[in-house]
Amino acid sequence: MNPVNLREYEEAAKNKLDPDIYHYFAGGAQDEVTLRANEAAFRRLMLVPRVLTGAGEPALDVTLPGTAASMPVLVAPTAFHRLADPEGELATGRAAAGAGVVMITAMLSTVAMEEVAATGVDLWFQCYLQPDLGYTESLVRRAEAAGCKALVITVDSPALRPGERARSALLELPPGLSCPNLGGDGDIRQVTLSPDISWKELDWLRGITSLPIVLKGILHPADADLAVAHGADAIIVSNHGGRQLDSAPATIDRLPLIATAVRGRVPVLLDGGVRRGTDVVKALALGATAVAVGRPVLWGLTVAGEEGVSRVLEMLRAELANALTLCGVGSARQVPRDLVVTDGPAAAP
Amino acid sequence: MNPVNLREYEEAAKNKLDPDIYHYFAGGAQDEVTLRANEAAFRRLMLVPRVLTGAGEPALDVTLPGTAASMPVLVAPTAFHRLADPEGELATGRAAAGAGVVMITAMLSTVAMEEVAATGVDLWFQCYLQPDLGYTESLVRRAEAAGCKALVITVDSPALRPGERARSALLELPPGLSCPNLGGDGDIRQVTLSPDISWKELDWLRGITSLPIVLKGILHPADADLAVAHGADAIIVSNHGGRQLDSAPATIDRLPLIATAVRGRVPVLLDGGVRRGTDVVKALALGATAVAVGRPVLWGLTVAGEEGVSRVLEMLRAELANALTLCGVGSARQVPRDLVVTDGPAAAP
Amino acid sequence: MNPVNLREYEEAAKNKLDPDIYHYFAGGAQDEVTLRANEAAFRRLMLVPRVLTGAGEPALDVTLPGTAASMPVLVAPTAFHRLADPEGELATGRAAAGAGVVMITAMLSTVAMEEVAATGVDLWFQCYLQPDLGYTESLVRRAEAAGCKALVITVDSPALRPGERARSALLELPPGLSCPNLGGDGDIRQVTLSPDISWKELDWLRGITSLPIVLKGILHPADADLAVAHGADAIIVSNHGGRQLDSAPATIDRLPLIATAVRGRVPVLLDGGVRRGTDVVKALALGATAVAVGRPVLWGLTVAGEEGVSRVLEMLRAELANALTLCGVGSARQVPRDLVVTDGPAAAP
Amino acid sequence: MNPVNLREYEEAAKNKLDPDIYHYFAGGAQDEVTLRANEAAFRRLMLVPRVLTGAGEPALDVTLPGTAASMPVLVAPTAFHRLADPEGELATGRAAAGAGVVMITAMLSTVAMEEVAATGVDLWFQCYLQPDLGYTESLVRRAEAAGCKALVITVDSPALRPGERARSALLELPPGLSCPNLGGDGDIRQVTLSPDISWKELDWLRGITSLPIVLKGILHPADADLAVAHGADAIIVSNHGGRQLDSAPATIDRLPLIATAVRGRVPVLLDGGVRRGTDVVKALALGATAVAVGRPVLWGLTVAGEEGVSRVLEMLRAELANALTLCGVGSARQVPRDLVVTDGPAAAP
Repeated sequence: MNPVNLREYEEAAKNKLDPDIYHYFAGGAQDEVTLRANEAAFRRLMLVPRVLTGAGEPALDVTLPGTAASMPVLVAPTAFHRLADPEGELATGRAAAGAGVVMITAMLSTVAMEEVAATGVDLWFQCYLQPDLGYTESLVRRAEAAGCKALVITVDSPALRPGERARSALLELPPGLSCPNLGGDGDIRQVTLSPDISWKELDWLRGITSLPIVLKGILHPADADLAVAHGADAIIVSNHGGRQLDSAPATIDRLPLIATAVRGRVPVLLDGGVRRGTDVVKALALGATAVAVGRPVLWGLTVAGEEGVSRVLEMLRAELANALTLCGVGSARQVPRDLVVTDGPAAAP
Repeated sequence: MNPVNLREYEEAAKNKLDPDIYHYFAGGAQDEVTLRANEAAFRRLMLVPRVLTGAGEPALDVTLPGTAASMPVLVAPTAFHRLADPEGELATGRAAAGAGVVMITAMLSTVAMEEVAATGVDLWFQCYLQPDLGYTESLVRRAEAAGCKALVITVDSPALRPGERARSALLELPPGLSCPNLGGDGDIRQVTLSPDISWKELDWLRGITSLPIVLKGILHPADADLAVAHGADAIIVSNHGGRQLDSAPATIDRLPLIATAVRGRVPVLLDGGVRRGTDVVKALALGATAVAVGRPVLWGLTVAGEEGVSRVLEMLRAELANALTLCGVGSARQVPRDLVVTDGPAAAP
Repeated sequence: MNPVNLREYEEAAKNKLDPDIYHYFAGGAQDEVTLRANEAAFRRLMLVPRVLTGAGEPALDVTLPGTAASMPVLVAPTAFHRLADPEGELATGRAAAGAGVVMITAMLSTVAMEEVAATGVDLWFQCYLQPDLGYTESLVRRAEAAGCKALVITVDSPALRPGERARSALLELPPGLSCPNLGGDGDIRQVTLSPDISWKELDWLRGITSLPIVLKGILHPADADLAVAHGADAIIVSNHGGRQLDSAPATIDRLPLIATAVRGRVPVLLDGGVRRGTDVVKALALGATAVAVGRPVLWGLTVAGEEGVSRVLEMLRAELANALTLCGVGSARQVPRDLVVTDGPAAAP
Repeated sequence: MNPVNLREYEEAAKNKLDPDIYHYFAGGAQDEVTLRANEAAFRRLMLVPRVLTGAGEPALDVTLPGTAASMPVLVAPTAFHRLADPEGELATGRAAAGAGVVMITAMLSTVAMEEVAATGVDLWFQCYLQPDLGYTESLVRRAEAAGCKALVITVDSPALRPGERARSALLELPPGLSCPNLGGDGDIRQVTLSPDISWKELDWLRGITSLPIVLKGILHPADADLAVAHGADAIIVSNHGGRQLDSAPATIDRLPLIATAVRGRVPVLLDGGVRRGTDVVKALALGATAVAVGRPVLWGLTVAGEEGVSRVLEMLRAELANALTLCGVGSARQVPRDLVVTDGPAAAP
């Protein structure tokens, strides 16, 4: 049966994938409290539609740092797309290009960023700041040369993830797969996650490139404020899809505080738990400019390669357009805050 | 076994109906969050009975726009009654007439409004404002001529529902069934749900008819206020039974805010999740003049035609009378606000 | 296996009783929301023990209207004890006498109040105010003559219960059983539950007897205040064990508001959901002088007659003494309010 | 399969232990409400990580009364280790010594405190104040002579536990096992739990020894304040692992209030429900200096003796270090309060 929504794509992908790979993609850290919290938090939020607004078909396009996008949805950075499909990030890139959305390609991609960029997609390059600043700079230069439109610096990973679900941890990629962003030899141990990295290294990065810098992994409003002060061009509210600190709060629960702290100075993006067009609307209403989806893209890629990713993105676009229409909203750029309420009896005004 | 409450009528109907039709009637949009929320929200509310009031047997009759009713319960508009019973809306109309309650017949009924009106029922006609105003006006004139006592304008549907539960969507009615309100040829594609419809079209409608206008699908207090300002004679707090925007809040959760906004200027009705006499009392206490029930009527119709609808309505009447009596309340017109509390420890006064 | 707590007594009784009788005793009204709420509300409350108080073994005795009691537990009025055991209320009375607790015998008992009183138990007589005041007065005179020490007037029943669980409703008692309090012929239709009964009839009752009057079925603080104003000597916070208005709130949730309204002018008792010694402590801390237990007594009676009731009462006494000791409390008469908190993170002081 | 976290150690131990012994160790009082609440309360708390702090590898060592510790984790006092492993408390002591953590050995240990101390572990001795003060003093003198570095006085047990889970209660130890702290003959009836013990006896104890006194079993902030006033050197927020008063609140829920009351005058420790490194971080953020773990140590001891206890402690140390790193925190001594939030939508600032 054809998947009719993003969750059904996960079911279909689960049936197709090697279990170890499925659990590697699907799993979260430790007890997966945060993994579940991301989706649960969206379910607690309700949308109060407005009526008779005459808003017409909603405009979905948004402006992101260095890029325009046909809708407020990005492809979140996820590793090892060739575990899902032989074409890997190439297929993802073509689908994202076709959909007119930004793809954030991962430092740990299985296709080199240059090849992904060659699909014509609006590409952002995700990386971890490496203690070896020379190595970091070489990655930045490659990203600049490849035409990447922004750098996404993941800041929630001063150490490796404490995962347990996939016991046969994917420490080594299968034969034939490598991480060409890391020098071409696929040795993922070349990535160093260090607790010594600080705002000082970010300041250094800010000084060596004019590419927009997007900080990914912010959950505390004080850090959002620091990010802006240190020259970030956007932030992504993220808990790494529940794969790093287990018991980190749901991203959508943190968004309002962070949007308040940022005060519109830079765009605020969000990932974690977005599975429905209504989830996108909730995030926009609470202050996000756009959201990123990670695992659903992998499920589409698993099920039908480029075509599968395209279908996932178009499904989300259709759901988003429908949800905005049903809410009486005419543009993804202007979603009123009072559209969202918490489930439960409404308090008196 | 004879159903002894409305939920058992659903069970009995489920056993009798073709599964596609059952799911079409029973289902909600997407993940059915709103569908479940409607009933769950009633369960969170508790009724604090008063004692020794000497209130006697409660009076159940209420006054609605253009109509009196023997109890504060209406038949909500639902489509395609002939999918439940060969007599369809005729059977429903006769049962509602016998019960002395208002029936709201749907634009998408399978019996013409004129025939339903001929049963003698107090009939309200539900329709969607059509971009082709001439077409809309012709429907209004038919409703006036048929003796309909009010127009119910559904305002929560600027686009089609995003349902998924019934995959073999009922895009076409079975042979022999049609929607005679739409011109007699049963082509339901003649109904246009448009996001361009606005308060302007409502103002136009207000100008061409003296029938009471009831706006159905209000969830935001600001829209309730606008409805009154634009001349609505009543509003129905509704999320379309969870069939349109999934993640719209439960109607009973929104009622207090809306009743406060309306300030008694027009009656406030509610549908969504009413399954017990105590649910009716909760809605009345929180500011509703009456409630409408949709699916339970279809279950009664499925199980035993006109007689089944009669039994459902009388069961609800008996439960309502019993609940008001046990609450010490003498009239459905005066149900005190402090009868309702939220489940959980009572706060200090 | 020997029951080691009150819930295991229910299991044992369920295994022994005819299912219809079990469900008649165990069931609640309609969806049994209130039935479940009574126990669930106790589970949400936590006890914060005090340490090193040197309180010694706790004194359990309390003073009730017209009676002293060895512990703050009464036998709540329940109908038809001979459905549980051939000796019926006689066995219950003997066990309560042995335990030094008050038994409230029901208008619908299957042993005459005079015979129950003859067991030597401290007996209170429960009745519904009958519209035929002469009939009511005759019951009062019998109670006075039998040596009953208080009248318990159930005020939550202006109409019959809307039960559904036991479909083969026990409209008639089995051959050989009767309700001798009603005239000796067992015709339970002689009890009239009328919505016309009001405070006026209570005033009349107050005028014809000097027995203490206990009003059972109060859930609203305003009614508690009215009860005191009309001369009640005690009130029982009760929702009739979830057998009358379904969706009435849990009694323990309502107790604090009612205790505040009563301001110590009369004792406040409570029934509904008491299954543990810790439940008793919670009620005492929130303002009750004592609690009544209904169904657990029936389960003890079913399992082992008089001996079973004794065991249930002694089990509750032991649990209560242990709970008070572990809380550092020395007397059932002085249980501090701040012993009870709601489950969840404690708010800052 | 090798256990990869503390809960899997419980599973492994359950498979190995005699069921009666397993339930004796694992069970709680009565309905085990408190037992479950301890873990559930941790799950409701979320950790908001800070980013780019450059904190480096976190320092885990802390200072406790009379002792330093390599991490903020102690071995909580639990009885009868030889039921888990033939070496019993000797194995536990060696593992704790190796890990550089404090072991609190129980009055009801199956190895004499002197022998446990001889392993070189930093040993604290737990006891119940005995009404026979001479007996209490003899225990204190033994503890002093054995080199114990603190006395842990359990104050939550003025009476025996009301457990029910293990019906064949372990009233007598198996042949060959004894409680040598009680005089060497293993008669556990020599321990008297008395409700007459009060702050007066604590004052006496304070006067006869210069060992640090740690009060274990505090849940009320007023008692925390009294503890400091009476000369306690530390307190342990504890509900006896859910084994004494069932319905006592979760310890982590009570910690903030107690930390506020103590105002840093003495270290506040906590036990109950700690199963993850993130749990330790939550407790530290809410004001604890360290936490104690009881059952997990027993599961490690069951599975692999000294080696199992070592693995449990090192697993917790690794999780703690990882959690602090992922939170951006550099020292277990300085965990900011705003790291912890309650699950759910964040309130506006």
